[in-house]
Amino acid sequence: MATIVEIADPADPRLADYRDLRDVELRKNLEAEHGLFLAEGEKVVRRAVEGGHTPRSFLMAPRWLDGLADVLDRSDAPCYVLSEALAEQVTGFHVHRGALASLERRPLPSVDEVLDGARSVLVLEDVVDHTNVGAIFRSGAALGFDAVLLAPRCADPLYRRSIKVAMGTVFNVPWTRLPDWYDALPDLSARGFTTIALTLADDSSPIEDAVAGLDEVALVLGSEGHGLSPRWEQSADRRAIIPMAEGVDSLNVAAATAVACYVTARR
Amino acid sequence: MATIVEIADPADPRLADYRDLRDVELRKNLEAEHGLFLAEGEKVVRRAVEGGHTPRSFLMAPRWLDGLADVLDRSDAPCYVLSEALAEQVTGFHVHRGALASLERRPLPSVDEVLDGARSVLVLEDVVDHTNVGAIFRSGAALGFDAVLLAPRCADPLYRRSIKVAMGTVFNVPWTRLPDWYDALPDLSARGFTTIALTLADDSSPIEDAVAGLDEVALVLGSEGHGLSPRWEQSADRRAIIPMAEGVDSLNVAAATAVACYVTARR
Repeated sequence: MATIVEIADPADPRLADYRDLRDVELRKNLEAEHGLFLAEGEKVVRRAVEGGHTPRSFLMAPRWLDGLADVLDRSDAPCYVLSEALAEQVTGFHVHRGALASLERRPLPSVDEVLDGARSVLVLEDVVDHTNVGAIFRSGAALGFDAVLLAPRCADPLYRRSIKVAMGTVFNVPWTRLPDWYDALPDLSARGFTTIALTLADDSSPIEDAVAGLDEVALVLGSEGHGLSPRWEQSADRRAIIPMAEGVDSLNVAAATAVACYVTARR
Repeated sequence: MATIVEIADPADPRLADYRDLRDVELRKNLEAEHGLFLAEGEKVVRRAVEGGHTPRSFLMAPRWLDGLADVLDRSDAPCYVLSEALAEQVTGFHVHRGALASLERRPLPSVDEVLDGARSVLVLEDVVDHTNVGAIFRSGAALGFDAVLLAPRCADPLYRRSIKVAMGTVFNVPWTRLPDWYDALPDLSARGFTTIALTLADDSSPIEDAVAGLDEVALVLGSEGHGLSPRWEQSADRRAIIPMAEGVDSLNVAAATAVACYVTARR
């Protein structure tokens, strides 16, 4: 059972994992160096623990203790309890959902493990916005995708904002980083997946046609600004587009992914 | 042609329209009381002006003057020019996209005007997040929807964040507020639209079946948290669901809208 530790001093060094949560760059360094990530909110904290992540500690105001009693019962980590005003001083923002946990990152699984038995896969190149990464995981999970593969520069699915927007689905959908950016798509083709790049390129087919009748599919999405790299666009087996109204540039990457996942799930 | 006014003092009272842009509540009051809204970024400022909105003023760092020269040429409003550091002091944030404009709100059109000739319409009940409102406009515009109707409590499409996420499509897609919340959906039915509520209700049909073969369709979306009100859910002609994987609660409202618009556009 978690040890309840009441905290009166916001400078208490035991709270180091929870400092300055609004400072994205600082957090990226701190989390990478200490191999941790943060989960926010009762539901997400529970999903992280049920997903097999070991808590380093919990931090919450007293009124959240009851709701998470079952999770705290099964953990040996300390639970720091402090007022909401003190929590705000530590984290730098108003903790709307009350409970936070700091959890240990695990070594990422291999691509083999993540693809084992998978039929529908999302492959993200340089999606840099944590909100978009989270939204893509949520849509993929809801629409029956089996796995997510990330290029080396794609934003972190275990960043607090990604987890929150994903509603914790980052703990359910198997995912990992691709070790080799350059040959990532040919490697997937060699494993039997038809790789389909979502792009506005001239030789794109409508997404419904591109996925029709396929068995193993990998949908490939690029960054918010400039889309896919030329290498990935050209090394994909097919290029596909979501047909759009005249005069509109494009869909947001999260909206495009939702539509493409829906269509692919019905192939 | 706009008058260029160089500004050296961030407290200059002529900059009142641009103060404290990160304070959502303060901005809501200020913009409502003065009948203005803000556009951010060269592309969005241009679209706002081309959409027929009269600028009250512009504010930008010197290096953005050239890119907006054509817009400034056609306006009589003052253009306040100041350094990026001063602009940050005034607005409270780093103005990434350089140019801002304050524009006059116009009286909202009537429902009759907005629906004139429309075949596919989005109806938003209490979508409270500006990012979601913007994303929904962008998806609706990209996927060929003709109009958007908003319940009285839906978030403002002309709020800076909504406009930005919508990529300025709020200036192209006709929209207005519904004057009567209670009878909004029966009124649409009386006008010949089949109203289809997106909901997880037990009697929902898959969205593809719900829209099949229909001519005039109004897709009805509810709030991020609790979805549609019972009144709207029950007064819609049909209830529809996006079929989802087992164990996943739901799609984000913006993702659900993108999928539903895609399916409806292909009915």
